[in-house]
Amino acid sequence: MLRYFTAGESHGPSLTAILEGFPAGVRLDVELINYELKRRQGGYGRGKRQTLETDLIHLESGLYHGQTTGAPIALRLINNDAKLERLKEPIAPRGGHVDLAGAISRQTGIRQVLERSSARETAARVAVGAVCRCLLNAVGIDVFGYVRELGGIEAPPIAWDRAIRDASPVYTLNPEIDPSIVAAIDKARQAGDTLGGVLETIVTGCPIGLGSHAQHDRKLDARLAAAVMSIQAIKGVEIGLGFEAARRPGSQVMDPIEYQHDHDPNDRRFGFRRPTNHAGGIEGGLSNGEPILIRAAKKPISTMAKRGPSVNLADKSPHPATYERSDVCAVPAASVIVENVVAFEIASALCERYVATSLEALHASMQVIHDLSRRH
Amino acid sequence: MLRYFTAGESHGPSLTAILEGFPAGVRLDVELINYELKRRQGGYGRGKRQTLETDLIHLESGLYHGQTTGAPIALRLINNDAKLERLKEPIAPRGGHVDLAGAISRQTGIRQVLERSSARETAARVAVGAVCRCLLNAVGIDVFGYVRELGGIEAPPIAWDRAIRDASPVYTLNPEIDPSIVAAIDKARQAGDTLGGVLETIVTGCPIGLGSHAQHDRKLDARLAAAVMSIQAIKGVEIGLGFEAARRPGSQVMDPIEYQHDHDPNDRRFGFRRPTNHAGGIEGGLSNGEPILIRAAKKPISTMAKRGPSVNLADKSPHPATYERSDVCAVPAASVIVENVVAFEIASALCERYVATSLEALHASMQVIHDLSRRH
Amino acid sequence: MLRYFTAGESHGPSLTAILEGFPAGVRLDVELINYELKRRQGGYGRGKRQTLETDLIHLESGLYHGQTTGAPIALRLINNDAKLERLKEPIAPRGGHVDLAGAISRQTGIRQVLERSSARETAARVAVGAVCRCLLNAVGIDVFGYVRELGGIEAPPIAWDRAIRDASPVYTLNPEIDPSIVAAIDKARQAGDTLGGVLETIVTGCPIGLGSHAQHDRKLDARLAAAVMSIQAIKGVEIGLGFEAARRPGSQVMDPIEYQHDHDPNDRRFGFRRPTNHAGGIEGGLSNGEPILIRAAKKPISTMAKRGPSVNLADKSPHPATYERSDVCAVPAASVIVENVVAFEIASALCERYVATSLEALHASMQVIHDLSRRH
Amino acid sequence: MLRYFTAGESHGPSLTAILEGFPAGVRLDVELINYELKRRQGGYGRGKRQTLETDLIHLESGLYHGQTTGAPIALRLINNDAKLERLKEPIAPRGGHVDLAGAISRQTGIRQVLERSSARETAARVAVGAVCRCLLNAVGIDVFGYVRELGGIEAPPIAWDRAIRDASPVYTLNPEIDPSIVAAIDKARQAGDTLGGVLETIVTGCPIGLGSHAQHDRKLDARLAAAVMSIQAIKGVEIGLGFEAARRPGSQVMDPIEYQHDHDPNDRRFGFRRPTNHAGGIEGGLSNGEPILIRAAKKPISTMAKRGPSVNLADKSPHPATYERSDVCAVPAASVIVENVVAFEIASALCERYVATSLEALHASMQVIHDLSRRH
Repeated sequence: MLRYFTAGESHGPSLTAILEGFPAGVRLDVELINYELKRRQGGYGRGKRQTLETDLIHLESGLYHGQTTGAPIALRLINNDAKLERLKEPIAPRGGHVDLAGAISRQTGIRQVLERSSARETAARVAVGAVCRCLLNAVGIDVFGYVRELGGIEAPPIAWDRAIRDASPVYTLNPEIDPSIVAAIDKARQAGDTLGGVLETIVTGCPIGLGSHAQHDRKLDARLAAAVMSIQAIKGVEIGLGFEAARRPGSQVMDPIEYQHDHDPNDRRFGFRRPTNHAGGIEGGLSNGEPILIRAAKKPISTMAKRGPSVNLADKSPHPATYERSDVCAVPAASVIVENVVAFEIASALCERYVATSLEALHASMQVIHDLSRRH
Repeated sequence: MLRYFTAGESHGPSLTAILEGFPAGVRLDVELINYELKRRQGGYGRGKRQTLETDLIHLESGLYHGQTTGAPIALRLINNDAKLERLKEPIAPRGGHVDLAGAISRQTGIRQVLERSSARETAARVAVGAVCRCLLNAVGIDVFGYVRELGGIEAPPIAWDRAIRDASPVYTLNPEIDPSIVAAIDKARQAGDTLGGVLETIVTGCPIGLGSHAQHDRKLDARLAAAVMSIQAIKGVEIGLGFEAARRPGSQVMDPIEYQHDHDPNDRRFGFRRPTNHAGGIEGGLSNGEPILIRAAKKPISTMAKRGPSVNLADKSPHPATYERSDVCAVPAASVIVENVVAFEIASALCERYVATSLEALHASMQVIHDLSRRH
Repeated sequence: MLRYFTAGESHGPSLTAILEGFPAGVRLDVELINYELKRRQGGYGRGKRQTLETDLIHLESGLYHGQTTGAPIALRLINNDAKLERLKEPIAPRGGHVDLAGAISRQTGIRQVLERSSARETAARVAVGAVCRCLLNAVGIDVFGYVRELGGIEAPPIAWDRAIRDASPVYTLNPEIDPSIVAAIDKARQAGDTLGGVLETIVTGCPIGLGSHAQHDRKLDARLAAAVMSIQAIKGVEIGLGFEAARRPGSQVMDPIEYQHDHDPNDRRFGFRRPTNHAGGIEGGLSNGEPILIRAAKKPISTMAKRGPSVNLADKSPHPATYERSDVCAVPAASVIVENVVAFEIASALCERYVATSLEALHASMQVIHDLSRRH
Repeated sequence: MLRYFTAGESHGPSLTAILEGFPAGVRLDVELINYELKRRQGGYGRGKRQTLETDLIHLESGLYHGQTTGAPIALRLINNDAKLERLKEPIAPRGGHVDLAGAISRQTGIRQVLERSSARETAARVAVGAVCRCLLNAVGIDVFGYVRELGGIEAPPIAWDRAIRDASPVYTLNPEIDPSIVAAIDKARQAGDTLGGVLETIVTGCPIGLGSHAQHDRKLDARLAAAVMSIQAIKGVEIGLGFEAARRPGSQVMDPIEYQHDHDPNDRRFGFRRPTNHAGGIEGGLSNGEPILIRAAKKPISTMAKRGPSVNLADKSPHPATYERSDVCAVPAASVIVENVVAFEIASALCERYVATSLEALHASMQVIHDLSRRH
């Protein structure tokens, strides 16, 4: 089992995370981690904050000669825009944020809660996920996220190709749709408004049997749903067909099972094939060898230049919601966050299922269980 | 914190659950619990199994003179259709079930995994949730679930009225739509097919501040998402507007904040009002005093009389998926399950937030925090 | 990871436990389990209750054709002496019990807390541990507990021999000392007093590396200490030399490391030998291949025929502590409880370290890690 | 519930901890925290490392204007002696350390495991505990630790007085015994040997009812035992009389209950008095209002100038154990570690029992439960 905590405020001196339970012997690819951090900062529609920060990972522990040791990994990201102590208490809580519920229920000001609740925290989660990705890559599991829909405009993938995504200003897999999305973002900016979208993450190469069918809190889909829903501004999660599955008859949802006799002995699906993957790679709480498909709905950022109606907390008179500098659209960033949060959960499930004290042990135990399942 | 485990197989002697952390001094309403169990067994479209079982709760511990004691509560449900030891190994795994992934990854037969993975287990979860409801009722929190859509047919609520729901053969809040839903179920049955649907649960009366904004795994929406996604056949979860939020501009998603000066001193929202509730009662991981809205997508049952293509596990030749007696439609039942699983999570968050060693302590601490928040 | 909860009151209808995370494919030895339950009921010095009860395990789930399935195992023990609802509220709380602290802090009567806090609950824990023992036995790990000291009389083992222990009326490994212990118990009974003692448990055959050195809550010694201290009436826990280690110079505590060149390839210690085992088989939070030695101090039962001074809770006047039927000495029983609680923790650490979805997978992964460590 | 992780190696760049779940509104006393860190570095018998380091806390998050915010608190300690990457692989594992078991079971070198397993990590735990102490102090709970025995020399306290302890070179409460202890340390140093000792911690002011009697893993004594046993080099834990309780008859162990009619209405024991406190403040898993007494046995450090017999891991030939610079005696330091680890657990249990989102809420809920218990 992997575990992590993050700490840090949006405008505090730094973000910190501790990731623990990580196997020894994994070479961490700092460039990969920083690339994910950079991607989180990018995407068309971001605000000024991202120009102030250049997130670079500081690995403070858990490494020796470039490889992990099995000890907890402390990660740090320095905030250039550290000015927390100079920031004032907002006058009017923003709807859609924790401002009001937090200040009332924690007996603090709004500042205390919004600084922690801010999506800046997700930089630390991306770093954690990117570390996990180094492990996943080492065992042939790939996690890939992109933007599927933005501001109501669908961008159906034309190919599962990282190069396409990374060339897109809005992280889609459809360059033909991108200009209209960019235009929509521009329009929202002019209107003082914001845009949301739909993110999809695909995990390929997962062995069969991650998670469990036997107890509610061990199911892989449950854990993925929690992880994704815990991300700031996410309001919906789907596995596979998701809500569409509720609308079709069973015969158009159930994935048939086929068998390919001449399969590779190392085939992680042992020759079993599914002509469709409506289940999204998880049946009964277990990964089934098909690609895991997760979709998340990100609402538009609730902080808008066009300030919404709110209340002055001091005298309870009507007052426009406080405006803190913000993005018009953080949907591309959200696709990176979802992707990396999913990477953590998959890595955690992997470490639970196999012997994960070291990468060597992980490889060996994956192989022996593969052989056992094959003979079975 | 409340915790629970369930145990038991679909055709084993019994289902068992242990619910622990429950406050002392709560009078458990056995009729209410049995009513929920009965509702779970009902709904148009169920198969023969439900006529064999009459689920009645057996409370084996944690009670003295009709009130809870603070000790763990052991719950039992006897299976009338207990025949596990006589059941044979299925020939061909059913797509959409844990059959294949479970048997391969656990080195067992299919029988061992399907008996546990079966939705019969949810009877125990409904019982646990219904016990929690006795606590929620005692502090003025109501959890209400219904069917919002079935087989692709929408049934928009005409009123939030338990009587309407309980009179509906398919647990909707729209009697005019019901006949067309019933007809769709009949049609599916004739076709050997199955139907899914969309369930909604509404929690009213929640105090502000359940959950946390401060760490990923304490967020109320994350925990609700996990709980709902852990239910058999659920493939999607939404809070508030859900995926619709991703498609609207921010100005049409953010809920304004208003203040009502002449509010009741016991108003759990302290006079703050939201003309809309697109957030579904949760902002930043905290309950915000508005009704909590959760929607879940239930796929149609994958076990169909019209058996899907599969593989004979013995010789790997094509073979129709094994058919175990099943329902054409368990969507109404699923609405009961979602509702009671949500009840557990809300009760758990409540017990974490307040002093929950006894109902008296819960009342007193809720009141003192209410007063503190009011003055704040 | 294995997890379990117990439920049930001393005089309620039954004790229940759910053990979850247990591997598939383990044949449960019901005779072994019942033998442990019987041993827990025995030992010289027990009171009348034990003649009323004959604890026999009821396995309600998690089995198919005599083997575990990987599903949660529900265990039940019926209480013959079920009379909870007829029992009266004690007048005066007993020192040394939860009576006073429980009733005050939970806003209940004494009855509600004492019925749960009673050591009768340990029958369920013994059953859980005995199930785990079936797993441990299957992989060559033995857990063996006995009484080392009783009422201040030491009984140094003459041999590690189950037959000697099981022939002893007080579960020691020293038949020559037994008569004086029995006499001490008789004397205590006549005096209306009670006796405590020291229990030792030895675990042999553990592979190297259970637990972790990397985070406080994963250390094997920490988890064993918690498990043993959680047992009713235990007030001290030692690993290896324990407190004696604090009194010796380091040179007389450190266990030298030697190497035996011609060791068996299956030797779980890979040829490394320790001429002493002062560390008690755990170094830095990890099992090191030597026998794990745990000692526990059990205080005498606080319920005594010679009732101690207390207070009538109604009017706060002095009043002798309430006397509930009890044992003069439950030290032999405690040795069984410690032993089985330790068995659970070792099994849990084992299932965390290796692939434990099935016994086959456990065997295979233990072997592959053994081979890896050997080559290393 | 409070939770924390630590990260960091003995010779890495820094130690990090994240403490999460901490209430808002607590003023952290940085001097107090640094004083505890300094005390951990002190005590007669320490080696050269302590002269290289001057541990000062860096609070990286969770604070605003000097008060906690309810957000996670990230703590950092910079290692001056950061040279991990230049350190060589030890030739021969040291008995009494994780060296051998860690390297074999994690497929790493010795360096990787010893750097994490080192007691340097306890500096982070002391910092976490000292932060918790700021909370405990604010609600009138005091945690006080001292050395009770060192190298086999007992130092019975002459008074519970911080000034005496802080003036003692070895942190005892008995200045008359100190010179003989110092002499024993000198003698050990000359012999190339090391010394251990017995630490005691006393917690006063605890309200009744922390912990639980109802489930094994919620018991306060179990959690304290785990916390203390998880400290490097601790081999035994006692609550109250500990092992002595096992040797006395029940009548000399049970603490009588008395009642003082004219008690203060704010008396946390509600007028109940115990003329003795053999139970050490915990009965049935609950704090009972008496001082909580915990004793721990610290073995002498296994790294000795007089190197013990070991094996060259390369060729398996006999070789003296590697000597890493170390202390002759770290017993005074251990008393600080135990004390602060206990502070964390008490604070955690406190935050679980009451409403701990803010210090205000904590105060208010403690008062209301006090009043409820009083009336009861």
